[in-house]
Amino acid sequence: MALERNVAVLIGGVGGAKLAVGLAQIAPPERLTFIVNTGDDFWHLGLKICPDMDTLMYTLAGLVDPQRGWGIKDDSAIALNSLEKNYQFEAWFRLGDQDLATHLLRSHLLRGGHSLTAAARFLSRRLGVKPTLLPMCDAEVPTMIDTVGCGEMSFQEYFVKHRWQPVVKSIRHQGCERAAVSDAVRSALHAADAVLIAPSNPWLSLAPILSVPGMKALLSSLKAPVVAVTPIIAGAAVKGPTAKIMTELGLAVTAENVAGYYRGIINGFVNDVRNDAFQLDAVRTAQFNTLMKNLDDKIALAQSALDWIGGWGP
Amino acid sequence: MALERNVAVLIGGVGGAKLAVGLAQIAPPERLTFIVNTGDDFWHLGLKICPDMDTLMYTLAGLVDPQRGWGIKDDSAIALNSLEKNYQFEAWFRLGDQDLATHLLRSHLLRGGHSLTAAARFLSRRLGVKPTLLPMCDAEVPTMIDTVGCGEMSFQEYFVKHRWQPVVKSIRHQGCERAAVSDAVRSALHAADAVLIAPSNPWLSLAPILSVPGMKALLSSLKAPVVAVTPIIAGAAVKGPTAKIMTELGLAVTAENVAGYYRGIINGFVNDVRNDAFQLDAVRTAQFNTLMKNLDDKIALAQSALDWIGGWGP
Repeated sequence: MALERNVAVLIGGVGGAKLAVGLAQIAPPERLTFIVNTGDDFWHLGLKICPDMDTLMYTLAGLVDPQRGWGIKDDSAIALNSLEKNYQFEAWFRLGDQDLATHLLRSHLLRGGHSLTAAARFLSRRLGVKPTLLPMCDAEVPTMIDTVGCGEMSFQEYFVKHRWQPVVKSIRHQGCERAAVSDAVRSALHAADAVLIAPSNPWLSLAPILSVPGMKALLSSLKAPVVAVTPIIAGAAVKGPTAKIMTELGLAVTAENVAGYYRGIINGFVNDVRNDAFQLDAVRTAQFNTLMKNLDDKIALAQSALDWIGGWGP
Repeated sequence: MALERNVAVLIGGVGGAKLAVGLAQIAPPERLTFIVNTGDDFWHLGLKICPDMDTLMYTLAGLVDPQRGWGIKDDSAIALNSLEKNYQFEAWFRLGDQDLATHLLRSHLLRGGHSLTAAARFLSRRLGVKPTLLPMCDAEVPTMIDTVGCGEMSFQEYFVKHRWQPVVKSIRHQGCERAAVSDAVRSALHAADAVLIAPSNPWLSLAPILSVPGMKALLSSLKAPVVAVTPIIAGAAVKGPTAKIMTELGLAVTAENVAGYYRGIINGFVNDVRNDAFQLDAVRTAQFNTLMKNLDDKIALAQSALDWIGGWGP
């Protein structure tokens, strides 16, 4: 189906970006839209930083650091080191020098009255990214994480400063009641022939997208298939805190529990070949290799998923 | 007099910073205050940039690039190059990566509600600068330059983008009617046993300071001597557009005309040994070597000027 149909993808950061690379290789870019988590976004030193958007943008632009999966390859941190050394400023959030250009320009556009959607379009186009990258909404909806012992903290404090070690009690999406599905997101979803939910962290990366008022109802109302890809392979997450958070929330670390989390939204689920098969009402399932070690894996998973969905018929 | 008395210095950028270095070598830092031109300040990419303050601060911190006289030595421009290369952003104002730390932190402080005065104190203290650096005022008073043929432009457009080549018709200090002498500047001037006007450009660097409402009257009311140092040596400026602007304003390029510009404010003028001596009502004059090629020259001029003023008696 890839060559003829519109695909929209709900997506977080590093994990999701792998599938994005596969999709970008097989789908015509003008038919491919990514709807990106902004719950991790924050203002730091007067700079608006959008970690998931930047990861995806740098990845699709071919600029990403291949080892870390985020940031720009071969970037330096001279400005940050100067903040630390010359000004004794505690710089716990790593900002590369090339990366700073992105934050400076985005912040400048936002202060000039442009929306986050417009800024993302400007930056990604300038970097030569051809698929459309849309923030999940234009409002600020920072993810706040309540932890056992350390209290509530912002996403970046939890994820970067505390290296996701505190035990999660609950997660909320601050200000989500004032957010709205943007026209660009609504149009992309209405135009989609298939909606994918990338193998990103459901609780940290997808939940913020689903917290935008009207988003769940919109997804449920679509005629197009909505299909999630498992972030859990053989009882573990490939990277990051998905499995840890599932345990902390009292859930067994299974793909079935991820599918259950998306119940009512998805009607398809791509499970991994290593996982147990399961049945879930009104959800079709398939099992593919979802472990994306290299470009071939990414393309194969993207192709398998789209071929499978394309075969569902009207 | 240097060891026992308070000295306040009205000052611009690179030229003035040379005298500042000399003064800092001989005066106790807690008795030395610099009142710095902010007419060159501007917002660029969401960053508040204060060229004269930064030049003075980097110079007194020992960080300045000795060749250029501004910016940080051995600084890189990776963020700026990324803006140009990755984002096709026309980056006519050079921003070093280490330098960016200053602008980021200052902008962050200003957005947090701190005054420019408070931000300057914070930054200079962190850099280990012991004399007090005060912006001429907290309000924004951008210097606007009307030119023959190119119309009116901001200081940075004139100075950096157009490399001070347009012919100056007139200069105004936008918004100066809303500015006020800050408490810190007023206190420093009242406490001063001597006020120096550094050999900076009178029209571009000192005029903005004098444009702050109340500043001229305050200077005239002081009992302490107010003494300017010539920026003109043998019919030329050491650096920058002083001589060019004097010509464009219809003035012969002489120290006497500079002293005349400060008439009513100064009661002393340090002329250069290479210049013609002159008499000006109510203004004492002395002639020293004002060409500061090295540290010894800077110290000698500072010492000569302060000794001379110290000998005036009550």
